Amino acid sequence: MPDGLNFSRRLRRTPYTDRAEAAGVRGFSVVNHMLLPKAYARSVEEDYWHLREHVQVWDVACQRQVEIWGPDAARLIQWMTPRDISRARVGDCLYLPVTDDRAGLVNDPVMLKLAEDRFWLSIADSDLLLYAAGLALGARLDVGIAEPDVSPLAVQGPKAEALLAELFGAHVRGIGFFKFGWIDFHGTRQLIARSGYSRQGGFEIYLDGGHLGGALWDAVWQAGQAFDIAPGCPNLIERIEGGLLSYGNEMTRENNPLEMGLGRFCVPGAAGYLGRDALDLIAAAGVAREIRGVLFDGGPCPACAAPWPVRVGGQQVGRVTSAAWSPRLKRNVGLSLIDRAFWDPGQPVTVDSADGLRRDGEVSALPFA
Amino acid sequence: MPDGLNFSRRLRRTPYTDRAEAAGVRGFSVVNHMLLPKAYARSVEEDYWHLREHVQVWDVACQRQVEIWGPDAARLIQWMTPRDISRARVGDCLYLPVTDDRAGLVNDPVMLKLAEDRFWLSIADSDLLLYAAGLALGARLDVGIAEPDVSPLAVQGPKAEALLAELFGAHVRGIGFFKFGWIDFHGTRQLIARSGYSRQGGFEIYLDGGHLGGALWDAVWQAGQAFDIAPGCPNLIERIEGGLLSYGNEMTRENNPLEMGLGRFCVPGAAGYLGRDALDLIAAAGVAREIRGVLFDGGPCPACAAPWPVRVGGQQVGRVTSAAWSPRLKRNVGLSLIDRAFWDPGQPVTVDSADGLRRDGEVSALPFA
Repeated sequence: MPDGLNFSRRLRRTPYTDRAEAAGVRGFSVVNHMLLPKAYARSVEEDYWHLREHVQVWDVACQRQVEIWGPDAARLIQWMTPRDISRARVGDCLYLPVTDDRAGLVNDPVMLKLAEDRFWLSIADSDLLLYAAGLALGARLDVGIAEPDVSPLAVQGPKAEALLAELFGAHVRGIGFFKFGWIDFHGTRQLIARSGYSRQGGFEIYLDGGHLGGALWDAVWQAGQAFDIAPGCPNLIERIEGGLLSYGNEMTRENNPLEMGLGRFCVPGAAGYLGRDALDLIAAAGVAREIRGVLFDGGPCPACAAPWPVRVGGQQVGRVTSAAWSPRLKRNVGLSLIDRAFWDPGQPVTVDSADGLRRDGEVSALPFA
Repeated sequence: MPDGLNFSRRLRRTPYTDRAEAAGVRGFSVVNHMLLPKAYARSVEEDYWHLREHVQVWDVACQRQVEIWGPDAARLIQWMTPRDISRARVGDCLYLPVTDDRAGLVNDPVMLKLAEDRFWLSIADSDLLLYAAGLALGARLDVGIAEPDVSPLAVQGPKAEALLAELFGAHVRGIGFFKFGWIDFHGTRQLIARSGYSRQGGFEIYLDGGHLGGALWDAVWQAGQAFDIAPGCPNLIERIEGGLLSYGNEMTRENNPLEMGLGRFCVPGAAGYLGRDALDLIAAAGVAREIRGVLFDGGPCPACAAPWPVRVGGQQVGRVTSAAWSPRLKRNVGLSLIDRAFWDPGQPVTVDSADGLRRDGEVSALPFA
């Protein structure tokens, strides 16, 4: 498969792209109209082992912020999500399924509550700003909505805390999971959250001011030398093993939060959100399919660029939307919606991968063991 | 610059991607979360000359359709655009600037009027569906909104009409510019418009039913053998020379339609659209800058992946957002907003390209001569 990417301004460079290039990036994806580094010199497998043992710096500036402020800000956000945000406190990060009126998933951002009337939604790959703006204009809500010059830099891995405590002070250690605090950097105050798109622990620095991007990368890089730091990116193997879903891969507007295993972030029957009636109906009937892991054999699988049928006998019971070879489990791991009658862990299945192989496998719980 | 693109389901393949790969595609861009072929075996220059003389088939399935139907469909669309759509007739294609309440450009689709209460918006690179859905939900409009399984295939170049008349019948010749008609294909009725993202003439077939993609490509390809057909894509040189703007490159939400030279598609003062007050103020004051061409020297320029300053003396008066070497004009051609005091054609300027050169040039009218 050819893999060239044709650059233009429309595929926006980030405040860290220069540094990623200097560090040898050799592949990108595109998220929110912005470049996301996806490969450096080492293989995905080597990066996987490194991420589990050391620390990496990731350019995740493509996690753009939709800033919503004003008297109706909380009301607008609550309208977009089945999750109850009323008890969130300033300093909290909340993972939010955002739905339309059919309970279809529009995005799954992390909400950062900056003040009672000011929020960031740190978004996955869809223009959530346009949805929020449409709702606000249509309903004449009293809010402001904009994309600020804020570009997250992730520091992920078991040594991230030690690195950042050394660089920015011991108070970083006191920041709880999915909470945020503040650090000083070059005379500016910057938000730092204990969060990130891996299961290995770590932080994300929401850099306010793109002109500081190179300096922040360099500071993390230099302090990281003592911790065997490497440039990295969200690791496909690690995130599949960890059961971390990807908007646009595992879920689209065709999916509802309940079948994606996000029921714990939903309050069926709660007032005041779009999609309530639809989600209540789905909850009452029970979901017809649900996200699962699939373990399958046949040697390392190719990239999953389009869904692969999952079958039991001749019947299609699901489709794999992300997959990778796990060097730890010595099998391929994939993510798939699986029909209700077949979703119990251990259920034998076959997977038709893009290389033409029909591979034997089985349904697994998530995260993978 | 590294140029790998990391594939995943999120970057959707099109009904034609298999054929593009078989035809030797060697680079993609990403538009509307979908792959857009950007390079085949021949150089952009060779493709440029070929496009001007013969005919090409382009996979532009990434021009997704936002279908809007129902009693309030026309009202919703009129609310989003300063262009008067009231006199559009079934069978018309209209280029629409779509704005927010600040008159910032949200997208610039082509509207196809399918019926009095049914439209397609054939979109540029932003999630216009989410904006329309937000507006409709917020204002409780009686509409349906969805992305149908419709994937445009463009046939562009001076021989396009002859090819398509031979393949689908002579009635294709009777379709006017920015009008659409219908063709029969494999027992289905398919929409065909005289339109496309080039100045060389041609058509776009809005294929309804992705399973027919391979067959349609093959039919065009085979009929095209007598016309020296080649696989192609929107050609950077040709579209810049022709003054065709690209959403995300020349314009974003930071730009208004008037400064982008789209005043002929706006009706300042007209009732009933978002951004009217903002656009009226801009029209009354006169725009502070406007889109222009820039001709500049120093040999073929690199790709413009981030804006390049345009200066007069020490003063920045604009920034180039797209640029390419024109083998016909023997100079580089670029597109730039230029401040009012400097926007007359012939104004000497310099352009700081990404390769570190300061290049001498001049402002040009659009399209380039």
